[in-house]
Amino acid sequence: MAKDEFDKIIIGIDPGTNVMGYGLLGVKGGKPSLIAMGVLQLSKMEDHYMRLRRIYERVLSLVEEFLPDEMAIEAPFYGKNVQSMLKLGRAQGVAMAAALGRQVPIAEYEPRKIKMAITGNGAASKEQVAMMLQRQLNIDPATMPDLLDATDALAAALCHYYESKKPFPSAGAKSWKDFIKKHPERLAQRQTGEADN
Amino acid sequence: MAKDEFDKIIIGIDPGTNVMGYGLLGVKGGKPSLIAMGVLQLSKMEDHYMRLRRIYERVLSLVEEFLPDEMAIEAPFYGKNVQSMLKLGRAQGVAMAAALGRQVPIAEYEPRKIKMAITGNGAASKEQVAMMLQRQLNIDPATMPDLLDATDALAAALCHYYESKKPFPSAGAKSWKDFIKKHPERLAQRQTGEADN
Repeated sequence: MAKDEFDKIIIGIDPGTNVMGYGLLGVKGGKPSLIAMGVLQLSKMEDHYMRLRRIYERVLSLVEEFLPDEMAIEAPFYGKNVQSMLKLGRAQGVAMAAALGRQVPIAEYEPRKIKMAITGNGAASKEQVAMMLQRQLNIDPATMPDLLDATDALAAALCHYYESKKPFPSAGAKSWKDFIKKHPERLAQRQTGEADN
Repeated sequence: MAKDEFDKIIIGIDPGTNVMGYGLLGVKGGKPSLIAMGVLQLSKMEDHYMRLRRIYERVLSLVEEFLPDEMAIEAPFYGKNVQSMLKLGRAQGVAMAAALGRQVPIAEYEPRKIKMAITGNGAASKEQVAMMLQRQLNIDPATMPDLLDATDALAAALCHYYESKKPFPSAGAKSWKDFIKKHPERLAQRQTGEADN
């Protein structure tokens, strides 16, 4: 079982109403590696609810199979119009429900943030993200599927891993103000330090 | 068990990120009646995911308790901005996931459509909708809770029941064009009839 081989498993999800990508990242001794990645094609299905159901069922089956400790979602906060955002919200919602029902905590990252974390460039192309993932996770290029939605999802998982390693993780905190509110003890320490100077 | 007492049970949901309303409608011998209604207060919870989880868990427990045959959702298609629509989409998504995971088909209705079905006026107030529900379902006014989000959800369920009784139900078809696509045999019959004249 993958669960026993790793200290932590992160599932990355890139939910959309046409394609859903997923990637599973295992961490062992501070080293992240690829467990699995794939794509759920939804564009052939005409029915909106059938698409949502397929997303829900696939994410649920991944959660049950790999027992991830955390979920990272690629979540754009801006969209073309309210209609597309409502649809996207639904796709995110059913994917999240599969994690929430199994007590898997969720973190979400904007596409720009993920690209920045993986490539150092917030405007990187999908191809650049895929190439950097391949290097950072030592994935055999021959086994790298030509599925850029899957690599986006894996990138979300790796971005979440990098964030969780930071001394002041930003995953759960939206701003410094928010972070300080959640961790008042850190502020006190810093203030004391400054007063000593 | 409510399931044995009715020919059909419809669960109505009015999902929001501050309040979620629900109402269960039973149909027996062509007569709809109230089974249960209530509200899930979410505004006290700061955490967005906790809210989504509570919505998912509550809808799932209602689906498991009452075993509804169909779900009707009040779903605005227009919103103030993309942010609020994304949040609303997520709330709808987690509520839908609870139904989709149990093979409960979903129908959605715009608020205006629901008000029109219940009161004959698409711009009716929540109070008017509640009053008309009370009459149409013979609810004892004393037992009618002062929870207008619950009555909105019950109204969605009743709207869905009325729609399902129509000879040409519009629930699954967005337009005549869509309806004809799904039911080509009906078009053929009508065309033949016209040719005979």
